[in-house]
Amino acid sequence: MFAVTILGNNSAVPAFDRHPTSQVITLDGNNYLVDCGEGTQIQLINYKIRRSKISHIFISHLHGDHYFGLIGLINSLSLLSHQQVLHVYGPAPLREIIELQLKVADTQICYPLHIHHISEAKTLIDTDKLTVKCFRTNHRIECYGFSFEQKKQPRSLLPEKAKEYEIPAVFYDRLTKGDDYTKKDGSVVKNEWVTEPAEPGKKYAFCADTKYDEALITHIEGFDMIYHEATYLDNLRERAELRFHSTTKQAAMIAKKAGVKKLLIGHFSSKYDTLEEFEAEAKEVFPETELALEGVAYTI
Amino acid sequence: MFAVTILGNNSAVPAFDRHPTSQVITLDGNNYLVDCGEGTQIQLINYKIRRSKISHIFISHLHGDHYFGLIGLINSLSLLSHQQVLHVYGPAPLREIIELQLKVADTQICYPLHIHHISEAKTLIDTDKLTVKCFRTNHRIECYGFSFEQKKQPRSLLPEKAKEYEIPAVFYDRLTKGDDYTKKDGSVVKNEWVTEPAEPGKKYAFCADTKYDEALITHIEGFDMIYHEATYLDNLRERAELRFHSTTKQAAMIAKKAGVKKLLIGHFSSKYDTLEEFEAEAKEVFPETELALEGVAYTI
Repeated sequence: MFAVTILGNNSAVPAFDRHPTSQVITLDGNNYLVDCGEGTQIQLINYKIRRSKISHIFISHLHGDHYFGLIGLINSLSLLSHQQVLHVYGPAPLREIIELQLKVADTQICYPLHIHHISEAKTLIDTDKLTVKCFRTNHRIECYGFSFEQKKQPRSLLPEKAKEYEIPAVFYDRLTKGDDYTKKDGSVVKNEWVTEPAEPGKKYAFCADTKYDEALITHIEGFDMIYHEATYLDNLRERAELRFHSTTKQAAMIAKKAGVKKLLIGHFSSKYDTLEEFEAEAKEVFPETELALEGVAYTI
Repeated sequence: MFAVTILGNNSAVPAFDRHPTSQVITLDGNNYLVDCGEGTQIQLINYKIRRSKISHIFISHLHGDHYFGLIGLINSLSLLSHQQVLHVYGPAPLREIIELQLKVADTQICYPLHIHHISEAKTLIDTDKLTVKCFRTNHRIECYGFSFEQKKQPRSLLPEKAKEYEIPAVFYDRLTKGDDYTKKDGSVVKNEWVTEPAEPGKKYAFCADTKYDEALITHIEGFDMIYHEATYLDNLRERAELRFHSTTKQAAMIAKKAGVKKLLIGHFSSKYDTLEEFEAEAKEVFPETELALEGVAYTI
């Protein structure tokens, strides 16, 4: 299961029951939190996502609607006697802000908290399941997007076939890694006769806050799904430009040019009560667009 | 109208749909916010309390559940083009925390924001309507309660009576201030014949986080209503003592010894799913106790 659940899809100020930016990427039971606007811990409770399962938090930039909920979440985990390591990634001043707030409260966090500062495009995590990278976006202040690339999975064994060819069970693990099996008589059982290829690893990117910028494309080309902000409808292109944000059609154009399979749009301005027009406008340019709705888990 | 509306009645971490501490004191159309836990701005929206009408915010202490929502509210007011002066009172490091977060976001607040640090018991506001004072409470870190004392109001004119005595309307203002009226023939119309006394000014105090401490009493004696924390049921007195908090019966004993008219209890531990026992226990000691429930406005 590789999915993203939206916790907040609004920009700047909370409005119309929409919350500031946060989303959870779930892969094989691990939760990766991206951005943490005010109230994120309450949204996690609302949607029954276990706070204790969050191992990594990525903060795109230090505008409040993307991180004011972080200190509360860090603090609550400690009050709830969290044990596991928590890694937090974000622009450099994040550490100073968190440490200052812990100091004045005379609070010791009870679990290992590692705050990593990011300052350039690079690989942040690389395990046998997943690679997470960050990349710069084009915003008013230093801002990063994050890509989540699932590793190619092992081949699936076809047990009936393996038995038919009399391959001993101890060799099954090597079969899933792609090895052929050589029998005692020297004959070779080709790997593809007894296994089938796994699904290729899926790719998702959170493109953070950004103005329209084709420089993003190199980081998200051919991805299965991207989240791109669409703060405004397309008639407010000038305002979007001025504030380093994007419109519906600009988000859709990036998705189209990057050849991704699916686009989620969010970070809606509090100007807008309803969202139907966001979807309609973006679909004119890129039909595989969906609104990022709070509480919904989108399978990647 | 002098009332307090509860926005959050939980301690430490949000739970069971209860939010961290915040309450609004409303007097003659002005809103005074006391504490501002995470999500306070969303609670203000939920309960249709206009953020723009908040002129003063008082922060009792720098544990996160009492102020993590402050920076978000300050920021949102600016994004919403707030114009009026906003005064914030709190322990000294509050200014550094707010200024740091505004700096890293490259944000200029668009309205006059005055952050006042409090470091001892004193009068913070003194107008013709209201006196607000702060006083120390006995908590793990520096912590303040706040008292709100409505000024004695002018006497109420009895218009029919004033006409009967042929007092000219230009003198009515002086009647409400208590002056007698002398007619041209030298006869005196006694003030009490044509006015009636106003209600005496009401008094409310927010006693913040505190262990049981009778030193509080001097600041709240005879008040119409106080809010006193009751983090735990009374069987957890030792834990309360250890953590500088109070139990139901301790809160009720303070109310009783201070001779107040009504007690609100809140700051309930996230251990407790339901609150009935809090009310029952406190009432054993002080019958005029009510639970501080979110969204409810209690008239003082």
